[in-house]
Amino acid sequence: MNQKKPAVWYEHLHTEKDTGARRGRIHTPHGTFETPMFMPVGTQGAVKGVDNKTLKEIGSQFILANTYHLWVRPGDELIAKAGGLHKYMGWDQAILTDSGGFQVFSLAKARKLTEDGATFKNHVNGDKMFLSPEVAMRIQNNLGSDIMMQLDEAIPYFETYDYVKESMQRSLRWAKRAKDYHKKTDTQALFGIVQGAGFRDLRTESANELVKMDLPGYAVGGLSVGESKKEMNRVLDFTVPLLPEDKPRYLMGVAAPDSLIDSVIRGIDMFDCVLPTRIARKGTLMTKHGRVVIKNSKYKEDFSPIDPDLSYYSDNPIRTEQFGNRARYDVPGYSPYQNLSKSYLHHLFNANERLGAQIASEHNLRYLLNLMEEMRKAIEEDRLLEFRKQVLEDYGYNKKDARLF
Amino acid sequence: MNQKKPAVWYEHLHTEKDTGARRGRIHTPHGTFETPMFMPVGTQGAVKGVDNKTLKEIGSQFILANTYHLWVRPGDELIAKAGGLHKYMGWDQAILTDSGGFQVFSLAKARKLTEDGATFKNHVNGDKMFLSPEVAMRIQNNLGSDIMMQLDEAIPYFETYDYVKESMQRSLRWAKRAKDYHKKTDTQALFGIVQGAGFRDLRTESANELVKMDLPGYAVGGLSVGESKKEMNRVLDFTVPLLPEDKPRYLMGVAAPDSLIDSVIRGIDMFDCVLPTRIARKGTLMTKHGRVVIKNSKYKEDFSPIDPDLSYYSDNPIRTEQFGNRARYDVPGYSPYQNLSKSYLHHLFNANERLGAQIASEHNLRYLLNLMEEMRKAIEEDRLLEFRKQVLEDYGYNKKDARLF
Repeated sequence: MNQKKPAVWYEHLHTEKDTGARRGRIHTPHGTFETPMFMPVGTQGAVKGVDNKTLKEIGSQFILANTYHLWVRPGDELIAKAGGLHKYMGWDQAILTDSGGFQVFSLAKARKLTEDGATFKNHVNGDKMFLSPEVAMRIQNNLGSDIMMQLDEAIPYFETYDYVKESMQRSLRWAKRAKDYHKKTDTQALFGIVQGAGFRDLRTESANELVKMDLPGYAVGGLSVGESKKEMNRVLDFTVPLLPEDKPRYLMGVAAPDSLIDSVIRGIDMFDCVLPTRIARKGTLMTKHGRVVIKNSKYKEDFSPIDPDLSYYSDNPIRTEQFGNRARYDVPGYSPYQNLSKSYLHHLFNANERLGAQIASEHNLRYLLNLMEEMRKAIEEDRLLEFRKQVLEDYGYNKKDARLF
Repeated sequence: MNQKKPAVWYEHLHTEKDTGARRGRIHTPHGTFETPMFMPVGTQGAVKGVDNKTLKEIGSQFILANTYHLWVRPGDELIAKAGGLHKYMGWDQAILTDSGGFQVFSLAKARKLTEDGATFKNHVNGDKMFLSPEVAMRIQNNLGSDIMMQLDEAIPYFETYDYVKESMQRSLRWAKRAKDYHKKTDTQALFGIVQGAGFRDLRTESANELVKMDLPGYAVGGLSVGESKKEMNRVLDFTVPLLPEDKPRYLMGVAAPDSLIDSVIRGIDMFDCVLPTRIARKGTLMTKHGRVVIKNSKYKEDFSPIDPDLSYYSDNPIRTEQFGNRARYDVPGYSPYQNLSKSYLHHLFNANERLGAQIASEHNLRYLLNLMEEMRKAIEEDRLLEFRKQVLEDYGYNKKDARLF
């Protein structure tokens, strides 16, 4: 085995005393970033409504981009010509790309799945396309993301044992094919995805076989697709311990504050989800005291701040070469969430002002990035359970849940 | 006459040697700002697609808000309860509000005009409303803008002499009524509006009568409504000299680079227009080398920067108490317009990504704010005609025009 560090590697800093939650760092060709982390989603090479400068200011580290969408528009070869996705979208920090599989199984039409891969018609112009483990790698190699995901099959949580087994084993074969195809291991890291739905033996087989492939990181897939939170925790309880301690662990598609904390408690380092920006565009804010549906008429004359306790700027140093540390106003403590009222944001949504969705999107991302910052601190200070209790109580989860763990 | 300075006053710095163009400052209760200036328009209390922080970074000084829109939604009394428009929209620099008249004459339905004012149905829910010189002042007093405009009648440029005369004289009477109503002269300045279309004697009567009212500033109204640029220059040539030299002069609704320069040459200090953000949302960029229609397929693989010569941050110090100077990245020279390509912006518009309109809106405003910064420097250095020639040539106006003055 080569002793040279792979493109992406995990540095462990601290294990929380009560829960075993991990505080670490992920080193990438585009900087070093703190875990546990939440990754904003930039579906088509842009986080919806939030520009790069703002993303940096609110403490974004990695962002996630969708292989399927970029493949369809503007095309991975065009992005390669432009010098890769980082340069194309002007983002000098780390990027994770998914495999495209999830969108093929949710957005595309006329899908046909074989051992080889999936043929389908794309959702934009209906062109027939073919996605295989190798194609997913070729596209992601063209995009030049720091972390690439293997192609797997996105299946519903409640499928039959036989179907889940067959699909999981196919995903394992696809992981092997992805690894064999991928040659740019010095600049891009391929992560495997553990499948197996709620079946412990299938999760175990999936994890063990993937670990044997010695990939630089692993995701737990097939969760956050409609199963209960309790069920998700149960799967994480027996799956995460199977993954190596010296590599990053990524749980896909999670953004609910309780799930973030409960998954970190179970050893997860990385998360992504479109939820914060998607609900923002409809006018729902995630705040310390729970969701605020800002279009509600009760906010019409509510002149209290959007989120008085939420600071704007991240205190977390980002290490990248191009920009150094983030911008700051000369006057400390500036925060749009403290300076703007619920009434104002209500007005913007009511009057169809696009700035409303922008502010709400930025706010929700900052809420989650700040939550992760506070969670990292709570791990460092060995008080994660106390932190969990407080966050859940503040957010308004019922008190039984908040005491559950 | 009281020797105390009014709420808003003009400080003259330099007169350009060849043209007589003015370089000055406008002092307001919300800071001191450099002229000549361009004011971004925040129609409903928000500049479409550009947040306050970005507005500051790109060097915005005053912004303009529309009385009619804020009256309809969310209502001027609500904004007064919130502590005024500055606080409501989180903008601590100066605000100019129009009278609402322009929208009544362009957007509203079932309009009926009398000496007293105008009744109409608003464009949002059809409610019957009444706007008079006094109501326009009451609303603007509630908004608390630094500069308020008198109600006038917005008429087409090519009307009969008799109609223009009658309308101009009514506007004069309305100016008097506005002045009589306005009691908050220590914090808000009322500007009069010179009317008279293309008729020199009517413009003269209007200007002379308004100047007798000793208002703190004057606008030239009824221009940029379809007449030729030559015609607009002709009116400015005989109108502006009638206005006092020690007060700000404002030309409404102008954003074309040649018109901005030619009007500054004729003694104008302030401009506003929705054009830069409106065309941005459709994908048109204003650049040093003319308009770029970014949706055009020729930009699909054009990896050159959006605008390589346009710097992001204003060098122009803004003097306000809350924020001090603007934010900056720690690394100098950061500019989204230099870091992002035409191909990327083409993709964002092509894929209906809202970030496209945001970047384009910010870009066009920065283009104009930067143009004004360079124009101020050219005045200071007595090389405005040379500057005009260069800007017009670069922008692609035909060479005959560029030599015209």
